[in-house]
Amino acid sequence: MTDTARPEARSPRGFVDRRARDLTAERKILAAVAEVYERYGFEALETGAFEYADALGKFLPDADRPNEGVFALQDDDEQWMALRYDLTAPLARFAAQNWETLPKPFRRYAFGPVWRNEKPGPGRYREFVQCDADTVGSARPEADAEIIAMAVAGLEAAGLPSGSAIVKINNRKLLDGLLASVGVMDERQKLVVLRAVDKLDRLGPEGVSMLLGKGRLDESGAYTTGAELSHHGIDSVLKFIGADGAPLQFTGAGGQPIQFVADRSAVLNRMSSVLSGSALGEEGLEELAKIDQALTGMGVSPARANFDSSIVRGLEYYTGAVFEAELLLQTTDDKGQPMRFGSIGGGGRYDDLVARFTGERTPATGFSFGVTRLAAALKAAGRDLAADARGPVVVLVLDQDRMADYMAVAGELRAAGIAAEVYLGTSGMRPQMKYADRRLSPAAVIIGGDEFAAGTVTLKDLDLGRELASGVTDNAAWRAERPGQMTVPRAELVAAVRRIVDAPKSEGSA
Amino acid sequence: MTDTARPEARSPRGFVDRRARDLTAERKILAAVAEVYERYGFEALETGAFEYADALGKFLPDADRPNEGVFALQDDDEQWMALRYDLTAPLARFAAQNWETLPKPFRRYAFGPVWRNEKPGPGRYREFVQCDADTVGSARPEADAEIIAMAVAGLEAAGLPSGSAIVKINNRKLLDGLLASVGVMDERQKLVVLRAVDKLDRLGPEGVSMLLGKGRLDESGAYTTGAELSHHGIDSVLKFIGADGAPLQFTGAGGQPIQFVADRSAVLNRMSSVLSGSALGEEGLEELAKIDQALTGMGVSPARANFDSSIVRGLEYYTGAVFEAELLLQTTDDKGQPMRFGSIGGGGRYDDLVARFTGERTPATGFSFGVTRLAAALKAAGRDLAADARGPVVVLVLDQDRMADYMAVAGELRAAGIAAEVYLGTSGMRPQMKYADRRLSPAAVIIGGDEFAAGTVTLKDLDLGRELASGVTDNAAWRAERPGQMTVPRAELVAAVRRIVDAPKSEGSA
Repeated sequence: MTDTARPEARSPRGFVDRRARDLTAERKILAAVAEVYERYGFEALETGAFEYADALGKFLPDADRPNEGVFALQDDDEQWMALRYDLTAPLARFAAQNWETLPKPFRRYAFGPVWRNEKPGPGRYREFVQCDADTVGSARPEADAEIIAMAVAGLEAAGLPSGSAIVKINNRKLLDGLLASVGVMDERQKLVVLRAVDKLDRLGPEGVSMLLGKGRLDESGAYTTGAELSHHGIDSVLKFIGADGAPLQFTGAGGQPIQFVADRSAVLNRMSSVLSGSALGEEGLEELAKIDQALTGMGVSPARANFDSSIVRGLEYYTGAVFEAELLLQTTDDKGQPMRFGSIGGGGRYDDLVARFTGERTPATGFSFGVTRLAAALKAAGRDLAADARGPVVVLVLDQDRMADYMAVAGELRAAGIAAEVYLGTSGMRPQMKYADRRLSPAAVIIGGDEFAAGTVTLKDLDLGRELASGVTDNAAWRAERPGQMTVPRAELVAAVRRIVDAPKSEGSA
Repeated sequence: MTDTARPEARSPRGFVDRRARDLTAERKILAAVAEVYERYGFEALETGAFEYADALGKFLPDADRPNEGVFALQDDDEQWMALRYDLTAPLARFAAQNWETLPKPFRRYAFGPVWRNEKPGPGRYREFVQCDADTVGSARPEADAEIIAMAVAGLEAAGLPSGSAIVKINNRKLLDGLLASVGVMDERQKLVVLRAVDKLDRLGPEGVSMLLGKGRLDESGAYTTGAELSHHGIDSVLKFIGADGAPLQFTGAGGQPIQFVADRSAVLNRMSSVLSGSALGEEGLEELAKIDQALTGMGVSPARANFDSSIVRGLEYYTGAVFEAELLLQTTDDKGQPMRFGSIGGGGRYDDLVARFTGERTPATGFSFGVTRLAAALKAAGRDLAADARGPVVVLVLDQDRMADYMAVAGELRAAGIAAEVYLGTSGMRPQMKYADRRLSPAAVIIGGDEFAAGTVTLKDLDLGRELASGVTDNAAWRAERPGQMTVPRAELVAAVRRIVDAPKSEGSA
């Protein structure tokens, strides 16, 4: 094989390899969340990676190769297929396809990779794992409340301390009603308003005000056309989205615990007071009142889920309640600077997605979060789910002719439930110890000529070794005394290794 | 929205939606196998769905659109990417890319979907889940033995009764040596021989004999060109692949337990006796002898892993030991006819895949199985992992104004660890009961005006109801007596529901 024929070993841009440490954290999250979701009566569903492009919607093929935001390709029979970009579109297709035979309402949860054909960047991938739960076929506000309560329970089960996150709830009908009352009925114009409000966190009231009016020139010189609302319209919207601002101080400085939380009905009352009697708005308020009652019934406190009129969600397809889970802890970025972590998931009610296929309105509501992002949030909240990661016990090979004996030792440890492996490289004693250290092994098993002759095994406590080597003890003394090394009869192998593996370690040893 | 604008709700050909029942079985398999693999010191790895086409290999782009067997598309920067068709090619790329920093040898396991752009058919999908484990960087036969022992342990942990499956082991070097001794050195010709031998199960010795010689005309009239071996060559190969035939009777008629198993060294001796002193063959035999010793060291009996000279595996890239896991139970097809289930996984040593990238030979060995196929094998072996599937307890809604109370009941049950949901549709009592039945609920909670007034709840044992309704009891009497229905104080809700949920059910109720 010549040099030029060799492909370069690299993964495509925007795709990452995930090693054990990250996977451990993500799998723990998914297992905990799946258990909660099943306890709420949601059943698992997995659809295929591909959907027909027309079924996915939004990204309909209008050119030879429709790859706007999705990874698309043409099948043998000329039909365009695309990799799913979320888990909601495949659910809508599945529900429409199987509606006759499904229990109604149909509750399902799903997790798996989704793909976005976007420009990759730091922390911005073209493949990532989402976890969704949705109820299809119930228009009841209680279905939204159930999803919200379940999101709260799921996040806490995944490891977020109670009070470190909150689900903020709003209803699209409120802003729609308000806009109707100031004369805005055009869907496109309403979408511009939604997107302006969605930027409140980033741009503040002044920036949003510009986007609601003529438009806004940003620092880079790019101009965003505004919604062209009247002064009265702008004022009404700003008043509405700021309506509940003052009393909702969930955290003090530096991530201190909750100081004061308004109860949900008080927030609803204030939201109501600025709505000026729109019928649609009233409908939205009634739905929120029922969500409040159902949440209270399920014991979800206002500190865990509350109303917030500034939440709108960017997606066009929401038709009623919308919600967003936000991390409240003060976190720091890579350089130690304080940063707002922000949203860790969201969702809402979408009553029209299934109707795309069937023509019949089928109410639906759901919540979605990114698994990698939640893992990052947990880390920021001080819960590193992979912190106690440990490698296997390593059985060193000192005598090539005794491989079967070394394999037997590893087999015995595994049979006792202890992760173990025989060193299968070709290096000598020192590199083998180094290997065990890199594998984060808790212990090494050493059996040479002396041990074979005496019917013993020598064990080395590597955690203790790492602890001592980290500078606590004098190096020469450490070597002479060989702390953490012991020789025991062969018959006591399992018991002795278990003592080392199970021993409590000091903080510094991990 | 007009009718013509509506997309049809269907999934692309060869892609399936998997519901809870199937997923439960598959997830149990993966969890059990992952635990075993980690106990053997293998770490989890997940690579992205896409690889660059040149890195995947085998399917290099030689046309505008290289979709021979894979799903490929061109990235923005003109590079061809393809969805992985197995988990070995991405591992080779990952190992080559990260070789400097990996612990060596590097042991990893992985599971996830793979994609094949092939003609779909019954039971033949274009997306399916594989589970692999590989050791990269060890040429030791003990590395093969470890993989084999782990495969055995994984299959048993997944639920296959010990003795219902066997891993059959061979070494490519044996057949290569034999072929060299009869003058066959051409790689292409050797591949034709391999593929002929691989069909022994299906075509029998006579069919294989034709494929080793001039060629074979099958029933459909298609002609397969043969390997053009001499009579002596054909005889030698047939003798070799039949060498261990007679004494290896693992199962009696009708899936009876194992009657007689030759020990591994006896099989090796017979294989050796027909090899006529080829140096390459001797090398292969020595490797197999070391595999035997290591397996014995790990306590793997010949009934669970043994040598079989007829195993060659179809893939071209194997360079040494090859192995195949086979279900031994007599199973029946959908029509009740006895069928041979056959292979449930396989693997072997491939020492050249990483060298494609680096130019340096990097020995590797691994085992792979299809998760859906293993689930089918388990079912065939009488182990339906989802047999005890149960839906949530359903809280019926009799009074629309008491939704918050119903939500509280469900919340209380969940807090006690019992899966529960409130009926969130709009139908009356009877359809709600029918819904609960379809959900396979163990119990329904009924709270109407009487119960609210008296501070009680009525519970219905639906498993018992299903059991009685299945014909054991007189229907009229059953209705009159309402067996399995009881009214208890509200405070005793959780305890009473738990009694119903935990009650042992008769076989017929599931």
